[in-house]
Amino acid sequence: MERNVFEEDHLLFREVAAEFVSREVAPHYASWDQDHLMPRTLWTAAGDQGLLGLAVPEEFGGAGMPDYRFRAVLDEEFATTNHLAVALAFHLHDDLVLPHLLAYGSEDLKARWLPGMVTGERVTSVAWTEPGAGSDLRGIRTKAVRDGDDWLISGQKTFIGNGISGDASLVMARTDGSTGRGSADSFSLFMVEKGEGYATGKQLDKMGLKASDTAELFFDGVRVSGDNLVGELGHGLRYATEQLPQGRLAIAVAASAVCRASYEAAVIYTKERNAFGERVIDFQNTRFQLADILTEVEVTETYVDQAMLAFNAGTLDAASAARVKLWASERAKSITDRCLQLHGGYGYILEYPVAQAFLATRLLTIFGGTSEIMRDVVGRHIAS
Amino acid sequence: MERNVFEEDHLLFREVAAEFVSREVAPHYASWDQDHLMPRTLWTAAGDQGLLGLAVPEEFGGAGMPDYRFRAVLDEEFATTNHLAVALAFHLHDDLVLPHLLAYGSEDLKARWLPGMVTGERVTSVAWTEPGAGSDLRGIRTKAVRDGDDWLISGQKTFIGNGISGDASLVMARTDGSTGRGSADSFSLFMVEKGEGYATGKQLDKMGLKASDTAELFFDGVRVSGDNLVGELGHGLRYATEQLPQGRLAIAVAASAVCRASYEAAVIYTKERNAFGERVIDFQNTRFQLADILTEVEVTETYVDQAMLAFNAGTLDAASAARVKLWASERAKSITDRCLQLHGGYGYILEYPVAQAFLATRLLTIFGGTSEIMRDVVGRHIAS
Amino acid sequence: MERNVFEEDHLLFREVAAEFVSREVAPHYASWDQDHLMPRTLWTAAGDQGLLGLAVPEEFGGAGMPDYRFRAVLDEEFATTNHLAVALAFHLHDDLVLPHLLAYGSEDLKARWLPGMVTGERVTSVAWTEPGAGSDLRGIRTKAVRDGDDWLISGQKTFIGNGISGDASLVMARTDGSTGRGSADSFSLFMVEKGEGYATGKQLDKMGLKASDTAELFFDGVRVSGDNLVGELGHGLRYATEQLPQGRLAIAVAASAVCRASYEAAVIYTKERNAFGERVIDFQNTRFQLADILTEVEVTETYVDQAMLAFNAGTLDAASAARVKLWASERAKSITDRCLQLHGGYGYILEYPVAQAFLATRLLTIFGGTSEIMRDVVGRHIAS
Amino acid sequence: MERNVFEEDHLLFREVAAEFVSREVAPHYASWDQDHLMPRTLWTAAGDQGLLGLAVPEEFGGAGMPDYRFRAVLDEEFATTNHLAVALAFHLHDDLVLPHLLAYGSEDLKARWLPGMVTGERVTSVAWTEPGAGSDLRGIRTKAVRDGDDWLISGQKTFIGNGISGDASLVMARTDGSTGRGSADSFSLFMVEKGEGYATGKQLDKMGLKASDTAELFFDGVRVSGDNLVGELGHGLRYATEQLPQGRLAIAVAASAVCRASYEAAVIYTKERNAFGERVIDFQNTRFQLADILTEVEVTETYVDQAMLAFNAGTLDAASAARVKLWASERAKSITDRCLQLHGGYGYILEYPVAQAFLATRLLTIFGGTSEIMRDVVGRHIAS
Repeated sequence: MERNVFEEDHLLFREVAAEFVSREVAPHYASWDQDHLMPRTLWTAAGDQGLLGLAVPEEFGGAGMPDYRFRAVLDEEFATTNHLAVALAFHLHDDLVLPHLLAYGSEDLKARWLPGMVTGERVTSVAWTEPGAGSDLRGIRTKAVRDGDDWLISGQKTFIGNGISGDASLVMARTDGSTGRGSADSFSLFMVEKGEGYATGKQLDKMGLKASDTAELFFDGVRVSGDNLVGELGHGLRYATEQLPQGRLAIAVAASAVCRASYEAAVIYTKERNAFGERVIDFQNTRFQLADILTEVEVTETYVDQAMLAFNAGTLDAASAARVKLWASERAKSITDRCLQLHGGYGYILEYPVAQAFLATRLLTIFGGTSEIMRDVVGRHIAS
Repeated sequence: MERNVFEEDHLLFREVAAEFVSREVAPHYASWDQDHLMPRTLWTAAGDQGLLGLAVPEEFGGAGMPDYRFRAVLDEEFATTNHLAVALAFHLHDDLVLPHLLAYGSEDLKARWLPGMVTGERVTSVAWTEPGAGSDLRGIRTKAVRDGDDWLISGQKTFIGNGISGDASLVMARTDGSTGRGSADSFSLFMVEKGEGYATGKQLDKMGLKASDTAELFFDGVRVSGDNLVGELGHGLRYATEQLPQGRLAIAVAASAVCRASYEAAVIYTKERNAFGERVIDFQNTRFQLADILTEVEVTETYVDQAMLAFNAGTLDAASAARVKLWASERAKSITDRCLQLHGGYGYILEYPVAQAFLATRLLTIFGGTSEIMRDVVGRHIAS
Repeated sequence: MERNVFEEDHLLFREVAAEFVSREVAPHYASWDQDHLMPRTLWTAAGDQGLLGLAVPEEFGGAGMPDYRFRAVLDEEFATTNHLAVALAFHLHDDLVLPHLLAYGSEDLKARWLPGMVTGERVTSVAWTEPGAGSDLRGIRTKAVRDGDDWLISGQKTFIGNGISGDASLVMARTDGSTGRGSADSFSLFMVEKGEGYATGKQLDKMGLKASDTAELFFDGVRVSGDNLVGELGHGLRYATEQLPQGRLAIAVAASAVCRASYEAAVIYTKERNAFGERVIDFQNTRFQLADILTEVEVTETYVDQAMLAFNAGTLDAASAARVKLWASERAKSITDRCLQLHGGYGYILEYPVAQAFLATRLLTIFGGTSEIMRDVVGRHIAS
Repeated sequence: MERNVFEEDHLLFREVAAEFVSREVAPHYASWDQDHLMPRTLWTAAGDQGLLGLAVPEEFGGAGMPDYRFRAVLDEEFATTNHLAVALAFHLHDDLVLPHLLAYGSEDLKARWLPGMVTGERVTSVAWTEPGAGSDLRGIRTKAVRDGDDWLISGQKTFIGNGISGDASLVMARTDGSTGRGSADSFSLFMVEKGEGYATGKQLDKMGLKASDTAELFFDGVRVSGDNLVGELGHGLRYATEQLPQGRLAIAVAASAVCRASYEAAVIYTKERNAFGERVIDFQNTRFQLADILTEVEVTETYVDQAMLAFNAGTLDAASAARVKLWASERAKSITDRCLQLHGGYGYILEYPVAQAFLATRLLTIFGGTSEIMRDVVGRHIAS
């Protein structure tokens, strides 16, 4: 069955995205992977090409295209060409930081941040996770304390993508002075720029996606002006919950695209490779495996595409988004594993895309809320 | 996510179908199950209600509604109310026999058969499978030999649903006198009525779906007029291949509906049942299980719905239909099994719908082509 | 790898058991299955043959053979010949009732019950489960109230195997007058004979294992002499916990034997059956499936055999027994399902042993504690 | 259940092995991993400690301990401390090269090679795999051509562990001058030392096990004296087949030990980690997951232990060894994956042992014959 979710404009945008990937990403990706860092020029190149901040209104320099299918097209191009670290870096900036600013930021905050985020001159990260608080945001200990009109932020964050390369973080901090697990109103969001008291810790050596820098951050009384509070005081968790569907949909989109790409790589490999006097694809087991994989690829695409339309229509609720993320990320994990296996020994060698895809997708059932958290969200919804 | 594939007319038709099920099926189903037979009055009642032969043109007494969503609505009503044996019986008549007559039958053949099939006065079965030929139709040995303008048909068929209750069978027979595995042109289709030389063997005692009679048939020189040849001589296999997508889509539709129904039964049961001082649904394991199940239910519905639209658009090719059938039937097997498990001991007692659903769905990965055959069809398509 | 757990004596006993099955069970089993009942003569024939109460000391008429491998041999003979309902009936009598009497019964109680249990003249059942209390025995509401030296027992039990055919039940009843979930000391065990106030409800129509009668029991002030209290007052739950390993090991033994038998049936079938011009076993997919199945069969046998030796040595603790039961029952469910699939349409027909095995094994992940309970037992042991 | 396969001597040997690992391996492993190479001093240290060539007769300097449990103990120590690359390097030397020399080597060949292999002064590799010949050894193109009493060897090998660090390879080469897929007698084994015409290609960048060097080898007319032919001419494939069980058992042993270690790491992590106000292990899902994992760990250990005893007894045939390897490697892949998931985000960070274990075990279903090859071996045995 043909996918039928994209229209003319999306296909044109796909050409732009594909051209960008082949020009600006593909030739350099291996060295970024080696360096565990992407250059800032990648961001400005993407900005020049109009690939960042698609949903930003034109008044702030953006394209004013909230239709998620454009974001999806870009993600798919990164995913299918096996440059998922770029997808991840842009994802943090565009699917997580941006929606919060768009939805809750004051006009002043938007005016200060959005234009630079669109041009790629300002690169952002999300600083929520802490050593003792992952999926359970109420465990966050980083605190923001008022000091006149300013706030002083102190605490430690970890697993922060773009933490080294970025200029600023959307920080979730405790603002009610509570200790222990906070309440629904204990936390607020701030845009925090690098500066005095803002230290970047060591790079974390990840299994895959190495080109995306991931680090610990340390805030030691970082002074933030009151204007950098995003939305209302104490609404941090509420905002995070409201914006989760976009983040989770984005992961599903990337996951689905990796499934398709890994399947296609496996078909090509097993057609080219011979063993026991036959093409590997001519073994019944290979054909059966590929039949199952293709079925799952198509099932996943169909599901994610419907979710995209639901998101555009404003009907992708939290539990639905959790199901889509759960499904697609688990499929990606399983499908890349099986496609790797079909490559035999070559699947274990990093120069093969399927090996990279396997390493990258292992994060997808963890990042953005583990599969266990997804099941919890969905299960509570069912039980209620 | 809401299903969005049905329109106003389908919803109205669903009401009709639901009313029919609750009036004509539900009160009697247990006794049919006991008898291993449904009464012929069920068929005429369905005909009266306009539920049979939906795709038959008005000139032959039908509703002229080829839109498959109407058939799907009816199937779903049988499936979700756990009356799958009726779905199966009608399926053979409407998804298998009928499309062959519509597509290849002469006007004369249509005029003789279609009106009765629409009213339910004529009940039909498909007689292809033989003791030595299941998925591999080229192994069929039943032969048709010319005798003047007539044909004399001899052979043995098995697993024939409606074989006892039906009036006639769409018989696949070898017409080229070959032996061994036949060629693509060795077989032809005939409408064969009960009569001299047409003997019905013993009922087969199936694991589930007992209300649907299944039998062996013995043809001992059954005389069939030349007018009962369906389409052209030697085109039997070609026709079968062309019409497979509808049959497989139909199974997927029923499978998907059973998934949804079993999920809902499990939610109700685990909400009502208490253990260790809590509702069973309040155990994390239960919630996680149901979260996975609901995700698969939704994934499957979305996929099957897209397949339905593709079928209506004429783009559901053989490999796509095989994927949809493979997927939905395997999900139904797995989901009913897991929902049964959530019922504890009650899941093993036949009066519980989930037990019946488990038994019924066990056929779905076998009937209409096993999952292995589906993988073969899909895999060859990939490898080619 | 060859099994090496059995010695000469066990092999001799296997011959006796096999002869018994072929003489006393095989010719009649189908009619028992039809009747949902086994005749009492089966029990006395088994007693005559020395197959019941193997662990009963010679002074009470038994063989004094606590070595569990003898029980296992008998179970395996029933399982591999697809007569699991007999295994189940004997299991309740010999693996559940008997160990409690042996371990906790007074000499008087033993003298009154054991000889008849050995000869098969007295058939027993276990009456613990209630409509509102399955795995959670503390939910049991059936109560025993003192009346002089006697006890009056009232309550309702369900899922009671041998409930119709048996003479007496080992009843778990609440003896401390508490309500709600009881405490660890709230319950006691009694041997309760059929008689006034002891009513047998309807047979439950199970999915499989139909020859084993399963019923509801109703106790309406059944008078039981104080001598029928098994062990000490308030020790019911403790005793049940102590004896669980034998019950669970027994299920694992039967499950493992069914795995082996289903595997062998699948090998035979796929060697005999032809499709597409080849034996079904000559398809790579079939061979791969059978390779996986045989591996699991062997893995399971090895594990269960080790558990048997541990049980004999007195080292099979509750968590170990739970793991063995969990493993073997889940394997049996999966393996019979896959072997059924390899039979194609014939797997769905009840006259094929694999269909019966599939239906029988579906109980094994539920009966004797569901897989969820097993995971709970094991998981708490790990977390503690 | 306690493992009971080891005796006093094995436990003493375990202490020696453990001490060696903590002294000679653990402090340096991270830097070897960084360098993609282990130093030769590791080998001589192991030799000094008596850890190499355990099965070598005393006359050649070995310990004369063919009891495989000693090898297993050593492997387990490497595996449970997460130093699998050392296990792999020693495995090639001791489980693959050594058995061929012991079984088929002339006295002269043994005298020249075994002493150095025992002391660790000579490090060996196995050079069978080629770019176009993995599991299908008959596709090997490297050829050996007679030149007087010598042989000239030319060809390309790949995936050669110890290829860079080692002194010599056990090379499989075609000796009958045939082309295309060879026959059973087309190949012979040679011990080939580094020297003229023997070039080492680039290191292959593997997903895990990085401390073990893996390279391509190029032979351009390498001159080998006739004395270096191992066993008889044309017997290469026969020998390989005969010695496969040891190699496969060894992989199963390591796989099983990794399962145990990853399980224990997951228990420790989930006991220490808190979320939502509870220890992670106190979530029902975690407990259930760990229950399943522990069950599989124990099942696998039991199976592998039995296989070890069978190997010692000389009864571990090719199909049995294939089943053990298939089972244990697939379990290791699955168990490390699930244990990683239980670590949440930390599972994706390479400094966590479970991340390393996940990467290492991904090779085990490929190396030493893929799972598909194992199924093929087992399946053909069944079908024959």
